[in-house]
Amino acid sequence: MDAVGRDRLKLETVEKPKPGPGEVLVRVAAASLNYRDKLVIETGFGLPLAFPFTPASDLAGVVEAAGEGAARFKPGDRVISAFIPEWISGLNKGNARTPPYRTLGGIFPGVLSDYVVFPEGWFTATPASLDDAQASTLPVAGVTAWFALMERGGSLLGKTVVIQGTGGVSLFGLQLAKAGGAQVIVTSSSVDKLARAKAMGADHGIDRSQEDWVEAVLRLTGDRGADHIVEIAGGAGLGRSIQAAAMGGRISVVGVMEGFEVSGPVGPIMLKGLTIQGIGVGHRTAQEAFGRAVDDLGLKPVIDRRYAFEDVQAALDHLDRGAFGKIVVDVG
Amino acid sequence: MDAVGRDRLKLETVEKPKPGPGEVLVRVAAASLNYRDKLVIETGFGLPLAFPFTPASDLAGVVEAAGEGAARFKPGDRVISAFIPEWISGLNKGNARTPPYRTLGGIFPGVLSDYVVFPEGWFTATPASLDDAQASTLPVAGVTAWFALMERGGSLLGKTVVIQGTGGVSLFGLQLAKAGGAQVIVTSSSVDKLARAKAMGADHGIDRSQEDWVEAVLRLTGDRGADHIVEIAGGAGLGRSIQAAAMGGRISVVGVMEGFEVSGPVGPIMLKGLTIQGIGVGHRTAQEAFGRAVDDLGLKPVIDRRYAFEDVQAALDHLDRGAFGKIVVDVG
Amino acid sequence: MDAVGRDRLKLETVEKPKPGPGEVLVRVAAASLNYRDKLVIETGFGLPLAFPFTPASDLAGVVEAAGEGAARFKPGDRVISAFIPEWISGLNKGNARTPPYRTLGGIFPGVLSDYVVFPEGWFTATPASLDDAQASTLPVAGVTAWFALMERGGSLLGKTVVIQGTGGVSLFGLQLAKAGGAQVIVTSSSVDKLARAKAMGADHGIDRSQEDWVEAVLRLTGDRGADHIVEIAGGAGLGRSIQAAAMGGRISVVGVMEGFEVSGPVGPIMLKGLTIQGIGVGHRTAQEAFGRAVDDLGLKPVIDRRYAFEDVQAALDHLDRGAFGKIVVDVG
Amino acid sequence: MDAVGRDRLKLETVEKPKPGPGEVLVRVAAASLNYRDKLVIETGFGLPLAFPFTPASDLAGVVEAAGEGAARFKPGDRVISAFIPEWISGLNKGNARTPPYRTLGGIFPGVLSDYVVFPEGWFTATPASLDDAQASTLPVAGVTAWFALMERGGSLLGKTVVIQGTGGVSLFGLQLAKAGGAQVIVTSSSVDKLARAKAMGADHGIDRSQEDWVEAVLRLTGDRGADHIVEIAGGAGLGRSIQAAAMGGRISVVGVMEGFEVSGPVGPIMLKGLTIQGIGVGHRTAQEAFGRAVDDLGLKPVIDRRYAFEDVQAALDHLDRGAFGKIVVDVG
Repeated sequence: MDAVGRDRLKLETVEKPKPGPGEVLVRVAAASLNYRDKLVIETGFGLPLAFPFTPASDLAGVVEAAGEGAARFKPGDRVISAFIPEWISGLNKGNARTPPYRTLGGIFPGVLSDYVVFPEGWFTATPASLDDAQASTLPVAGVTAWFALMERGGSLLGKTVVIQGTGGVSLFGLQLAKAGGAQVIVTSSSVDKLARAKAMGADHGIDRSQEDWVEAVLRLTGDRGADHIVEIAGGAGLGRSIQAAAMGGRISVVGVMEGFEVSGPVGPIMLKGLTIQGIGVGHRTAQEAFGRAVDDLGLKPVIDRRYAFEDVQAALDHLDRGAFGKIVVDVG
Repeated sequence: MDAVGRDRLKLETVEKPKPGPGEVLVRVAAASLNYRDKLVIETGFGLPLAFPFTPASDLAGVVEAAGEGAARFKPGDRVISAFIPEWISGLNKGNARTPPYRTLGGIFPGVLSDYVVFPEGWFTATPASLDDAQASTLPVAGVTAWFALMERGGSLLGKTVVIQGTGGVSLFGLQLAKAGGAQVIVTSSSVDKLARAKAMGADHGIDRSQEDWVEAVLRLTGDRGADHIVEIAGGAGLGRSIQAAAMGGRISVVGVMEGFEVSGPVGPIMLKGLTIQGIGVGHRTAQEAFGRAVDDLGLKPVIDRRYAFEDVQAALDHLDRGAFGKIVVDVG
Repeated sequence: MDAVGRDRLKLETVEKPKPGPGEVLVRVAAASLNYRDKLVIETGFGLPLAFPFTPASDLAGVVEAAGEGAARFKPGDRVISAFIPEWISGLNKGNARTPPYRTLGGIFPGVLSDYVVFPEGWFTATPASLDDAQASTLPVAGVTAWFALMERGGSLLGKTVVIQGTGGVSLFGLQLAKAGGAQVIVTSSSVDKLARAKAMGADHGIDRSQEDWVEAVLRLTGDRGADHIVEIAGGAGLGRSIQAAAMGGRISVVGVMEGFEVSGPVGPIMLKGLTIQGIGVGHRTAQEAFGRAVDDLGLKPVIDRRYAFEDVQAALDHLDRGAFGKIVVDVG
Repeated sequence: MDAVGRDRLKLETVEKPKPGPGEVLVRVAAASLNYRDKLVIETGFGLPLAFPFTPASDLAGVVEAAGEGAARFKPGDRVISAFIPEWISGLNKGNARTPPYRTLGGIFPGVLSDYVVFPEGWFTATPASLDDAQASTLPVAGVTAWFALMERGGSLLGKTVVIQGTGGVSLFGLQLAKAGGAQVIVTSSSVDKLARAKAMGADHGIDRSQEDWVEAVLRLTGDRGADHIVEIAGGAGLGRSIQAAAMGGRISVVGVMEGFEVSGPVGPIMLKGLTIQGIGVGHRTAQEAFGRAVDDLGLKPVIDRRYAFEDVQAALDHLDRGAFGKIVVDVG
């Protein structure tokens, strides 16, 4: 892309890049798309993009060459990218005035390309049990769910978890919460998607087009409420999650589907002693732990549909309609 | 009171009560008032009050007699009441639909009375280093600050804490945060109150009538922001606290001065990885630990003014104007 | 029993007790035995037992009558006992000089009896999915495993857990760690027991009679080590667990099979940043949460063998030989 | 040094090194010594040292030149070294079989030298409020105390902390625990050192040559015991700390003065629900947070004595006798 806009997205033929010191050259096999990629392509998302700009952040590929001093991977190693590549562990960098948003497919270049050259530390090993299309879905959607439920979620055993929706983060959340021993309630306005979520192990599905989801959660839990709610809506949706949360419950704010301003009643936040926590994907160390768990648990990411590289526009249209799980572009 | 309303508040002469099994008779020496008491007296606060109703929740007094089987205290012991008397430790009771609000001076009787008879478990020992007026300020204001900063706050050493205002909870928060090794920034719209807060140890005061407090926090911290903000405003004030919070910061929602609905931008909640936690006072075990700390640290509660029992109306007027610290009624 | 000694254990016919205020009368259906019961019966275990003494601490039964003011349960409710009945949540009572050991079948009376009368707060509801024999195994063995892995263990998802042995605590640990998404390694010196543990879901079994278990853990984890080790041996066994633990690993000390003094190398404790934590069963709130999880997860306790009330001596002999899971006495 | 041995320690004149890519040249102003340095010099400490070997790990100095691409510091910046320079945050690298011990003055070169050239990431900014001699004491002794009490210690406010001894880690522990609002008990076998510890703020001193320190802790706490014990002894000393610990208490194992094998009674570990945690200094992110806190709190490291560069042998002799706080060598 040489400017913002869906119509400016086109394939360019450029020279194959060479890895400098500490860098690796990676042949991209697959890239998964996130709704944010669509916003960046169409609006720039308020980011200082460098043109020509390559969109998308999540890749799986193979190391083809390593630059001088780069020893973390060797040619032939399968790798996936890290969304916030400089965030290794602990707290992300940045400060109160300027929270950090230094990601691939944003301030840093993206991955919808046959080859990328990045510092070696921007990759982690691909879980051996996944193919490239599956592995490409981990960096944003998978790590976000892992970070919310694992790094900042405490034990899941015997807890009740509410997963809103059936997009990428949501289905990873469903799989992880079930693997961790939780009772999982999924909400959706599609009967069909609820059926598929139940087939994946969800204990209950709530059809938001038919009933008030908060009342349904209270009914299903005997008024106890949910211990952890993965909140993707934003907006006034937070207020509903606050009502559905159990005493001492936790709400992970992971998305902004309904608005960039959240609101809700303060009384129950105080009386229930709730914790509302923001999840901005996660760090590389979490991605590594998540990758090990994917292998150990035999967890298979859910891909709604795979698109050829030349059909990226159709893939973006699919994002608009909403996917069940992830959309992947086969690059290599 | 035989009905809701400031004009229905009057002193009644009743028979001195007797403690039943497991109960103690306590002669009240002092009661401290909270803004909530004013709301209960004037509006009922939506609570199913039992009339005749005695308002206020925080007392310090002396055990005069113990009922059958009551062995926790003996006559002569100095005690203070617990605001949520059934909440011993762990999570409070209640569920998602009906968060618990079973407090003294509400669903349970209040303490503006020469004598009260309550179950022995509804009291804790008075810290030896405090007089009764001082000790009466602990159950709501003191325990709230302790619960936010200690039980759910992690270590304070080297952290930057923002305390909003100079009311009861705020000044306890200032004292505890300083005792815990934090840098403390106090906000107020009164130059005089800021001067008194600094005299108590506040590192910085921000005059909200003169400058934007969020910008001032960023300036004072070199844009790093605040690690923990004790948020008493509610309403859109939460959004300002979100902007002032550091990476990985924590916001304790302890009050509703500006509204029962909170709102704020979701972007920085996610990008900063914030934790927003509701604090609804605290449990009896926390009150006991806080009491020990008060003695150990030599912490003296700040009382703005003491009123005679017959001047309760003037004390309530003072609450309306806003106090620097606590208002106490000398009962016995 | 009117004195310490296996030969002093005999059935007595006494009058059916009546519940006093706040108490309930429970008809005992089943009691599970712990190795500790054998030590108490044979040696007194250093406890100030009150004679005549009824041994054993874990019962499942039915409430037959409630005393005045007892409203927690009603006649017909199925209940199980709490091992440390006064420990509701938070920290147990007691102090540094005198750690608390106020348990049923010890300082308090035991449960090998047709009827018991205890305060109503000493019981929790029986999980609906268990029969009485199964439910009787929860108070000590089940709650210990739950407390180690859940209350003080953090998330299990993707972690490697080593379970030593195949006794009561160990098999609950195996079931819970698998339900929580961990890879589980069981050690035993019996090929047969290892086969049964694998049939229950253990990922790996290590035959301690054939190989060094620490080396085997390192081999199975590619030298990474175990994230959490449930240590039942005590003695110098702790040193082996220290060697088998991963960086940042956790060792739960739950038993004293090999000695009352633990020892181990300090270097790896420091270099690995290990956490060694003592688990002394757990509180009533944990038992309640565990009970809900048992129902939600469909977890079935493993009973090696059930004995008739008159065959308690044979049951104690079985404890001596070592059981696979739990030994239960059918009382009612 | 060209071989292990006190007599092989000598000043060599070598060419001033040049920083390569990503490295900085630092002129050393001061180096503080740790007992471990003495062991490395005299015995090699079992490490694969590269000769010629420069001992000691803790420096304060000034950046004189930065190599290509090194942007973390600029010439003139004051810096201190990180003891385990590759450990940035989260868990240290390494595995169960080979816990990491990749430190300066060990596997990596040491700092008793006019100049060092290290990767820029091996340094952190010197706290502005300290001179170089003071700042040189932070990397091992200061960070160890900070990591034990802050990163892995929870809040200190109102807690009782026992500090064993008056060496470098111990006095930092005393200062931090007091700054954090704890009651601090120091043990020593020197009346004089106890007096100096009290002058620094210790609430109580226990003379180990005159009384049993565990009994004294119980006496001083009314049998409640200590919430956190900084255990420097190792050996059977751990058993004493276990006896002195409060219910739910924490013991930080930071040293091995009395032996490389720890031992203690398992009963109280379980009944008190203790946490015993190993502290192997700490990561660079902790050192940065500690540095900020040093400035904020105005904390001044305690230096027992400063030695000229040519008097290193006398400084090592002083280590043998035991120092009150730290020993510093003025290098530059």
